[in-house]
Amino acid sequence: MHYAEGRKTACEDVFPEQFAHCSDLNTTFFIERMIQAEKPDLVVFTGDNIYGADTTDPVASLDAAFGPAVSSNIPWAAVLGNHDQESTLSREGVMKHIVGMEHTLSQLNPFGVDVIDGFGNYNLEVHGIEGSDSENKSVLNLYFLDSGDYSTVPSIPGYGWIKPSQQFWFQQTSMKLQKKSKTPGLAYFHIPLPEYASFDSSNFTGVKQEGISSASVNSGFFTTLVEAGDVKAVFTGHDHINDFCGELTGIHLCYAGGFGYHAYGKAGWSRRARVVVVSLEKKSNGLVKGLQNIDSSHVRPDNRLPKNFMSLVLVYQKPFIWVRHC
Amino acid sequence: MHYAEGRKTACEDVFPEQFAHCSDLNTTFFIERMIQAEKPDLVVFTGDNIYGADTTDPVASLDAAFGPAVSSNIPWAAVLGNHDQESTLSREGVMKHIVGMEHTLSQLNPFGVDVIDGFGNYNLEVHGIEGSDSENKSVLNLYFLDSGDYSTVPSIPGYGWIKPSQQFWFQQTSMKLQKKSKTPGLAYFHIPLPEYASFDSSNFTGVKQEGISSASVNSGFFTTLVEAGDVKAVFTGHDHINDFCGELTGIHLCYAGGFGYHAYGKAGWSRRARVVVVSLEKKSNGLVKGLQNIDSSHVRPDNRLPKNFMSLVLVYQKPFIWVRHC
Repeated sequence: MHYAEGRKTACEDVFPEQFAHCSDLNTTFFIERMIQAEKPDLVVFTGDNIYGADTTDPVASLDAAFGPAVSSNIPWAAVLGNHDQESTLSREGVMKHIVGMEHTLSQLNPFGVDVIDGFGNYNLEVHGIEGSDSENKSVLNLYFLDSGDYSTVPSIPGYGWIKPSQQFWFQQTSMKLQKKSKTPGLAYFHIPLPEYASFDSSNFTGVKQEGISSASVNSGFFTTLVEAGDVKAVFTGHDHINDFCGELTGIHLCYAGGFGYHAYGKAGWSRRARVVVVSLEKKSNGLVKGLQNIDSSHVRPDNRLPKNFMSLVLVYQKPFIWVRHC
Repeated sequence: MHYAEGRKTACEDVFPEQFAHCSDLNTTFFIERMIQAEKPDLVVFTGDNIYGADTTDPVASLDAAFGPAVSSNIPWAAVLGNHDQESTLSREGVMKHIVGMEHTLSQLNPFGVDVIDGFGNYNLEVHGIEGSDSENKSVLNLYFLDSGDYSTVPSIPGYGWIKPSQQFWFQQTSMKLQKKSKTPGLAYFHIPLPEYASFDSSNFTGVKQEGISSASVNSGFFTTLVEAGDVKAVFTGHDHINDFCGELTGIHLCYAGGFGYHAYGKAGWSRRARVVVVSLEKKSNGLVKGLQNIDSSHVRPDNRLPKNFMSLVLVYQKPFIWVRHC
């Protein structure tokens, strides 16, 4: 979202005639309309929720950024990007504030794990339909990780990465969950893995308009994901004008396109979000069999121009997940 | 060493006229002479110690392979390669047998760590000169890791890799050791990291005569090493006819060339080993200041042809480390 100070914060990369009436509030109203249109079961924000450098009151910015999710009464989850901590709150401070907000399922870090890098590493289990035989078991596992901000190692330039402690936690968690049942998973974090650069137009769906801004090193998380075997798709933010998905070794690596108006983008290329629709299979006796399909192919672009913040513009950005019970 | 059944086990890749008199015993005698010539303080074997597929009695093979190290009374350490378990002993069984041998400093796995992949992950602290102020502190930290054998993930072909659990252990250990003092480290394991492929003749020293047989995926251990910051050099085996060292982001990535005669090699290109010489700096008052230099540039080739196993041929293979106190 790159949220800063609401109405006073200007949009970036819109057409010249749109600047005068465009602000963070366009982002706000567009989330609201997005939620109204999609009626999702869970909203996931993949980091750079606020643009720390442009706010003097990060708590107010966080409250405003997530406001529409909070007031929708729909569960929501968030991870950190590389810009969230660039004001007066540390990464821990930002994540602690998020965790304390209403209706969020976000967690600071996993319970019972002594050592883990970053803040906002956690997992959620999505149970099946109430009253069905899948009511008390997970039909979909969601993993959220903190992909860091910037390298703190002098010899490694650029962005952060997912560290061994986090990968170890992920692997142990995935193993524990898979012992219970072979439930598929999805992973959400901010900075794309180096493997996102494996695709060209011949093997991805969507749009690639900029390079892959991964860490300058490979920290092995893609290998860890492949070995764990349960994660079917990864959703990241970070590169605003890419919205493609490509499949590598059985894992879909997906962007969603940028969502916030106070974030770089491309005038004329709508802000957008990815909608994930998960459907359950019914057995012949009418009982739920298990997960039938995860459809992550749907990116919803803004279908109106941001004339002013009161207009009925639909803007979708960070991945939305919609668990549709059928 | 690729040790099998001693005298009955033929050599590979020697000149035709050498076959008749060449066996595993050439390997044995050459270690003996190597130890006599170098008088090392520690001998490190970097895996494929035995060639499991060619022995029916892996215990006898292990005893024979490490025999010269054991009878030298010099401390020695070993890690597993990808061939050690190819007989009737599992990787755990092989490592347990090694750990029980005389004069070895090898360990099955680190004490107090509940979950770790592989067998033979451990670290050693090399203390300074007796009677000096460095007597009770480590002047050099050695890390040993099990780089696995083969991928067990159907979608990933090829060799194994160092897993998140091992990297987490390494990172925690390195951090603990560095809190005590900024002591440099060396790491030993069998399968080279994908980053070994970063070099060409313009930026390595030594010989490259074959490709880099890493895992087909990058599991991030190089990144973990760079982030930890203490490991100055990595020594691997696996690719017998490479003996080069190259530096990447401050870490020397080194091969040593093949050592064993029952292992592929190249006729006319001597079996060999790397000698690491570590020297301490003296303060003006005569006390030891700390580590002055780690010289890993020395690869000792066999300087005689293996006419028969009784000849005085010096064969050096796996990295030898010599902590020279001055």
